[in-house]
Amino acid sequence: MTFICLMIDIDYLRLIDLSGIAAFAVSGAVAAMRKRLDLFGIFIIAFVTAMGGGTLRDLLIGEAPPVWMFDMWYGLTVGVSTLIVMLFTRQIENFRKTLLFFDSLGLGFFTIVGIEVGLSLNLHPVICVTLGTVTACFGGVIRDISLRTIPVIFQKEVYASACIAGGIFYFAFVYFGADDTWVKVVSISAVFLMRMLAVIFDLRLPNPYRSA
Amino acid sequence: MTFICLMIDIDYLRLIDLSGIAAFAVSGAVAAMRKRLDLFGIFIIAFVTAMGGGTLRDLLIGEAPPVWMFDMWYGLTVGVSTLIVMLFTRQIENFRKTLLFFDSLGLGFFTIVGIEVGLSLNLHPVICVTLGTVTACFGGVIRDISLRTIPVIFQKEVYASACIAGGIFYFAFVYFGADDTWVKVVSISAVFLMRMLAVIFDLRLPNPYRSA
Amino acid sequence: MTFICLMIDIDYLRLIDLSGIAAFAVSGAVAAMRKRLDLFGIFIIAFVTAMGGGTLRDLLIGEAPPVWMFDMWYGLTVGVSTLIVMLFTRQIENFRKTLLFFDSLGLGFFTIVGIEVGLSLNLHPVICVTLGTVTACFGGVIRDISLRTIPVIFQKEVYASACIAGGIFYFAFVYFGADDTWVKVVSISAVFLMRMLAVIFDLRLPNPYRSA
Repeated sequence: MTFICLMIDIDYLRLIDLSGIAAFAVSGAVAAMRKRLDLFGIFIIAFVTAMGGGTLRDLLIGEAPPVWMFDMWYGLTVGVSTLIVMLFTRQIENFRKTLLFFDSLGLGFFTIVGIEVGLSLNLHPVICVTLGTVTACFGGVIRDISLRTIPVIFQKEVYASACIAGGIFYFAFVYFGADDTWVKVVSISAVFLMRMLAVIFDLRLPNPYRSA
Repeated sequence: MTFICLMIDIDYLRLIDLSGIAAFAVSGAVAAMRKRLDLFGIFIIAFVTAMGGGTLRDLLIGEAPPVWMFDMWYGLTVGVSTLIVMLFTRQIENFRKTLLFFDSLGLGFFTIVGIEVGLSLNLHPVICVTLGTVTACFGGVIRDISLRTIPVIFQKEVYASACIAGGIFYFAFVYFGADDTWVKVVSISAVFLMRMLAVIFDLRLPNPYRSA
Repeated sequence: MTFICLMIDIDYLRLIDLSGIAAFAVSGAVAAMRKRLDLFGIFIIAFVTAMGGGTLRDLLIGEAPPVWMFDMWYGLTVGVSTLIVMLFTRQIENFRKTLLFFDSLGLGFFTIVGIEVGLSLNLHPVICVTLGTVTACFGGVIRDISLRTIPVIFQKEVYASACIAGGIFYFAFVYFGADDTWVKVVSISAVFLMRMLAVIFDLRLPNPYRSA
């Protein structure tokens, strides 16, 4: 019984994980096609967008090789996502909301994964939140730098901020002694909701520039 | 006798290795001079073009420090190549074919080196081919990103594709039980020929964009 | 008594270290504000400018996680520096000379830190100087690439060259058997002075391009 629960639990997390990977890969492939890259370029940008954040986190903590070298499902998910984007370029626009849904879910999920990696190394909460943000956001940063645009998360969107806020939620819940599963569910939901609401209502960070 | 053969074999591989490094360094130095970088900038771009792919591969598999920190021949080869480019800028244009020859040979050689590094870690063939492609191509990617251009291999050239095809050759030959030396010679030649023919006949990957 | 001296010595080095970090963070924050990044973007660029060089060096030598994951003073210094830049944007211009002073001191200090990391791994002097230059200069390179400009140190300024020259001073002094403390003080001063003089007198590397 416990074993079955564990199986379900693992499959459930795996589904979120691969959905997030797929959503990130789609965002990479779409960006690469806008810049008219070739087949190989599109796949590579999809791959670094999806796996770059986790890989950079692993490099920073001295964890190598990264998991995608052992588990072929990651590469396969990226490959299939890229193929779908190339075949259904025009229709993808209509799935904007579906994509945002999975992208936001992935953002929350990867933030918490990064935080828990930091905790397993006994790092300071601030560094754990940093690792969560790196895991969730830096695939997009590498995508934007490769495509010669200033990373979008540095400019106007509530993106990294949602990860940081979710991380603060996480440690606040842990501090007040919440149950482990609840901590995860609530923190992932918090990132997810902040990102969704920010896009829907076009929310931004306070402007650090004085109006001219 | 065996010892002498081994010596010859090592020197032979070393010659290909350093020739490839030199060709990659020249391509980096030429690109840096086109952007009017200063002396230091030209050398650094030549260095990252030549060593970046192997260094990134080593970082990914947790192999550090990279070999160029122990074997000074790498840095020396890059230095001499850069100096030659700076002294003979105009004449370099006339050696276009010679450069293509060594660049393509380096491409094949570094692909197979990357694949064999992956095999030594018991990684999946797909990951081995990935590591081969990273070794051969990502020096050029780092060069292009540093010089603020979208990496050329993401755009139109048969470059990474030649590495991937060569990697497939490699594993096909291994599968059919070919002799180890033959596997290497044929795979390196395959990458070399595909790259040479692609440049000479201006071959490209199929266009993923519908004509307007 | 020895203990007190040691304490003073450590605090002294720590003060230079954190002053250099602060100066680099300020240069990152100023550059990010020129590109109109948002709050998060400004902080991240300040952070990678200040910590990027040392982190890249640590990745290259297989030393992970980097020190800023354990010592919260680094992140705090970057945070406070960034905040000051945001609050006093206009006044910062008036502190140009103060900033140059600390930036140059940081440059010298980080160069020698990098060299000594290389020595502790028994690396070749040339590689030690390379590690020193990476430590001191590559934060700025990552800053410039993230902000989509060709790295300034590749173009015209005596910056990396000051680190390399300081490194050569270091090994020359060691060779002639100078006392360890003196070696450090003189090498740091050499980098500091070269950088200051280069900015004040607008010195540049010899031009590798023939005049048209």
